[in-house]
Amino acid sequence: MRAARPFRPRIRERRVLVLDQRRLPFEEVWVPVGSAAAMASAIRDMVVRGAPAVGIAAAWGMVLAHWAGEEPVGADARLRAARPTAVNLAHALDRMRPAWGDPEACLEVVRALGREVERSERAIARHGARCLRGRVLTHCNTGPLATGGHGTALGAIVEAWKQGRVDHVWVGETRPWLQGMRLTAWELARAGVPHAVLTDSMAASFMAAGEVDAVAVGVDRMAMNGDFANKVGTYGLAVLARFHRVPFFAMLPLASVDPEIGSGGAIPIEERPGGEVLSLAGQALAPPDTPVRHPAFDITPHTLVTGIVTERGVLLPPFDEALRARMAPRCTPT
Amino acid sequence: MRAARPFRPRIRERRVLVLDQRRLPFEEVWVPVGSAAAMASAIRDMVVRGAPAVGIAAAWGMVLAHWAGEEPVGADARLRAARPTAVNLAHALDRMRPAWGDPEACLEVVRALGREVERSERAIARHGARCLRGRVLTHCNTGPLATGGHGTALGAIVEAWKQGRVDHVWVGETRPWLQGMRLTAWELARAGVPHAVLTDSMAASFMAAGEVDAVAVGVDRMAMNGDFANKVGTYGLAVLARFHRVPFFAMLPLASVDPEIGSGGAIPIEERPGGEVLSLAGQALAPPDTPVRHPAFDITPHTLVTGIVTERGVLLPPFDEALRARMAPRCTPT
Repeated sequence: MRAARPFRPRIRERRVLVLDQRRLPFEEVWVPVGSAAAMASAIRDMVVRGAPAVGIAAAWGMVLAHWAGEEPVGADARLRAARPTAVNLAHALDRMRPAWGDPEACLEVVRALGREVERSERAIARHGARCLRGRVLTHCNTGPLATGGHGTALGAIVEAWKQGRVDHVWVGETRPWLQGMRLTAWELARAGVPHAVLTDSMAASFMAAGEVDAVAVGVDRMAMNGDFANKVGTYGLAVLARFHRVPFFAMLPLASVDPEIGSGGAIPIEERPGGEVLSLAGQALAPPDTPVRHPAFDITPHTLVTGIVTERGVLLPPFDEALRARMAPRCTPT
Repeated sequence: MRAARPFRPRIRERRVLVLDQRRLPFEEVWVPVGSAAAMASAIRDMVVRGAPAVGIAAAWGMVLAHWAGEEPVGADARLRAARPTAVNLAHALDRMRPAWGDPEACLEVVRALGREVERSERAIARHGARCLRGRVLTHCNTGPLATGGHGTALGAIVEAWKQGRVDHVWVGETRPWLQGMRLTAWELARAGVPHAVLTDSMAASFMAAGEVDAVAVGVDRMAMNGDFANKVGTYGLAVLARFHRVPFFAMLPLASVDPEIGSGGAIPIEERPGGEVLSLAGQALAPPDTPVRHPAFDITPHTLVTGIVTERGVLLPPFDEALRARMAPRCTPT
């Protein structure tokens, strides 16, 4: 995949350029970010999104904190609070902590994190490709834009297409932000993979017509029993896949598994502003006082998952045992 | 419900004002329609939509044909082809046929159709309200805007709320046209019914959380076995409702049942332009060459339906027997 990476570090200028994913696919606008506070805003406002990419963004935030002379405790807290659901953010900040006070060491941790993402996502693509065939449906965006590496589910889909296993991708548009229509379709077009966008509400009838051979999605945070949070709509796809006997795969680096959380009910679900549902690209779709809900994520129980694809292979049920075996001992290659 | 009806006939001016539903909820723009050709365009371009309202619109189209001096065979054909899925359009035009050549008789048939819609929808609301309780989820728009009368599913929901049976309505936004967000939320606000808009992808997690006590939807065309076509997304809601043991009701006048069609597979599904998915309110969401699909309807099999609410009562399985009994003898009160 001719990947557009979401970050361009400018070490000499002491800032990081962040690709504004809200402006894609129409414009490639790079936002200069020069402090941890600004990076926290970029994460909260969805200039950068996708669980792994948000982790890398937070790590860069701590480097920026040094350069900008921000106090690390406050910078860390601000970044940690930017988005509550993905665990990668906390993981990345935990990794930075021993390097606080040493800009060079911080920079080295960021680079190590980047190399780990690259390496684990190459493995996810390799393992995940074996699970896929024919026409694959995906949701939201799990490509390089979402991760800074090769992507998780989308990386595996593209790899499976290169191998001739997958011939078509159905892209769920992913309301309200339309990450599928705007980002995944854009990445697939760049990679040359045949695809078509569907509204989220069309997935069921395409499954009923036998036009979906597998569903592959990413993960924002996974509990130790295999339950996981991902972009709202994922759970519904899992139910529909089960009903239509379509295999359903969750694909993630083990860094997205939260060892502190036993099951999905304990994962905090971010409720974002309703205005994000009622407007698109700055244009109102309905009056701003329309009552609306906006949980940004939902929880898919492990019982609906066919397989969990990680950098350490494809896990099959019972997932709790498989995850425990892969998570411990937790060695961190650098 | 303080209903906004979709038509304002202007007999002396020999035209019909049609409320442009594409501009709601921001503006109430009334489009003057003065010929069958113009009415066919208004139907095709979704100035007016909703199966029963489209039927009435087509009948007005034949009155306009007389006034505008259009040849009735061509006018009938043009109106019949405007939208393929709903059967009400063909029913209404069939009713007009004996009156061809007599403008006064045509006008009388249109008025009779209007009275029948009012009467049957009052009965649907009464029967349907008994099926509903607590928090009801609905899809698309089935209120007065969609029918010209009281509405089908939304009429029953509002009636159940007046009776204190229903206390909250979840409004699926209904991509790509957002009839739920734009029209249903607007009608519920006017009626004073508590409600909140959800993206279509959120329905599953609200069901899983126990926050949906019933699903009620309208019907564009029903086969004689109870399978039915309705706005795309309906089928997925039916699967989700079954999975979560939430009762699922289809509400329609018997005029929306097609006695010629035995099962859902024979109902033609309109594939509308992909550009309607890729843009909203004239603004592009993604580049116009993005590959996209746009089936406007899907088929829900009768096996997923708890009850079918008609003006002649609530039908329970086996639906084929119940429908045969209600459909024949087919008396047409005028």
